[in-house]
Amino acid sequence: MRWNDNDQYGHVNNTVYYQAMDTAVNTWMIREAGLDPAGAVRGYCVASSCDFRSPVSYPDDLEVGIGVGRLGTTSVTWELQILRADDEKPVAEGRFTHVFVDATTQRPVPVPASVRTAVEQHLLEKVT
Amino acid sequence: MRWNDNDQYGHVNNTVYYQAMDTAVNTWMIREAGLDPAGAVRGYCVASSCDFRSPVSYPDDLEVGIGVGRLGTTSVTWELQILRADDEKPVAEGRFTHVFVDATTQRPVPVPASVRTAVEQHLLEKVT
Amino acid sequence: MRWNDNDQYGHVNNTVYYQAMDTAVNTWMIREAGLDPAGAVRGYCVASSCDFRSPVSYPDDLEVGIGVGRLGTTSVTWELQILRADDEKPVAEGRFTHVFVDATTQRPVPVPASVRTAVEQHLLEKVT
Amino acid sequence: MRWNDNDQYGHVNNTVYYQAMDTAVNTWMIREAGLDPAGAVRGYCVASSCDFRSPVSYPDDLEVGIGVGRLGTTSVTWELQILRADDEKPVAEGRFTHVFVDATTQRPVPVPASVRTAVEQHLLEKVT
Repeated sequence: MRWNDNDQYGHVNNTVYYQAMDTAVNTWMIREAGLDPAGAVRGYCVASSCDFRSPVSYPDDLEVGIGVGRLGTTSVTWELQILRADDEKPVAEGRFTHVFVDATTQRPVPVPASVRTAVEQHLLEKVT
Repeated sequence: MRWNDNDQYGHVNNTVYYQAMDTAVNTWMIREAGLDPAGAVRGYCVASSCDFRSPVSYPDDLEVGIGVGRLGTTSVTWELQILRADDEKPVAEGRFTHVFVDATTQRPVPVPASVRTAVEQHLLEKVT
Repeated sequence: MRWNDNDQYGHVNNTVYYQAMDTAVNTWMIREAGLDPAGAVRGYCVASSCDFRSPVSYPDDLEVGIGVGRLGTTSVTWELQILRADDEKPVAEGRFTHVFVDATTQRPVPVPASVRTAVEQHLLEKVT
Repeated sequence: MRWNDNDQYGHVNNTVYYQAMDTAVNTWMIREAGLDPAGAVRGYCVASSCDFRSPVSYPDDLEVGIGVGRLGTTSVTWELQILRADDEKPVAEGRFTHVFVDATTQRPVPVPASVRTAVEQHLLEKVT
């Protein structure tokens, strides 16, 4: 967390949770699925939502747990839990839907094979 | 919009829309309902969501349209439309639920009378 | 200003002033000098600084006054004043040095002619 | 770093470095000197500056090195180096002057003893 994440009420502002979720998903795709942010296919966020359970404040340490709620043809809906270190109950739970598009045409394209495989191997295993 | 609102894809990052909605609602409550951000009652965001229809980029000018979807005992659910100047079709549509709490006890309290009245007069009129 | 610009002390966080200065300079170059942010020449910030005179808080309205301290071969040093509406004394004064580079080679290039002309016409006139 | 730290040029926006420096100094004072952000004494930033040596991009990992340039009666001037992991040459070097004030009166007060001691023990030792 950053000092300026806290708002006037001394709590991490609600918009910062979306930054955390956005970053967690992009970092996961870059590290686990080799997605190149400057490559030919981009994930655009078309919908997101979050339920805020309990307030947190800088300098708390937070972690983001990533799952997948739906793996579609051109989209992935991520399910995210924001957790305080040493606390099993999430402080917030969110969803994030990425549609993959061609960077040039801006038209939807299939979920990149590397992302699909990484999701199937790491994030959907509990379902099987 | 700000220069640093654009992300690497040259579009306003999805988290900025939540900043816009948060700011629009708080500004409306301060100006129309006399809410004091340093006062005894605070509005905490307990849930939010947004559907992103089309990308925008700095230096576009954006406006936020405010409505109310539900006026409860201790909460208000705002419905928000983010619009580009001179374009009737919203670029994004969101929802924001505020629960009002006592600044000291952090327990829910009734929606402040000034907020309730302002909502009823200005944001619910189309319903009647 | 935005609701989340205020930090835990109820003041606009110092980093937000840099966002304001960055935005003011880029907006000025786009509107007054026709600079295309996606074009072949980019302005990179190589140094900045700010003296903070008095705190401000959302929902104050702020303006940024722009001047130029130095117009070099490949760089411009902007001088900026952040003002509260109806108050002549700046709440902060900053400086921002842009070096212009070729977007492909990332090597310094001369200040674009349109920027140089706009600076000479509008921002240096008091010097002559 | 966060996904939305990158600006349209694919680089971490200059304002993010100030967030990193602000956070590093506040975290250091909280952890090493027991400063309570909600306590009776606050550090206000009255001046800051930064020289940007080379661009960085999310998902780079960055570290902030902290030193003290001047330990005054009511103020501390921090000297900060922003470093990429595994690279000795800083990508940016900045300065940050905090004046300590009474949270109620907003008047300057001496640097808290715990901060002075921690600075003398940990950040000025190389000087002796």
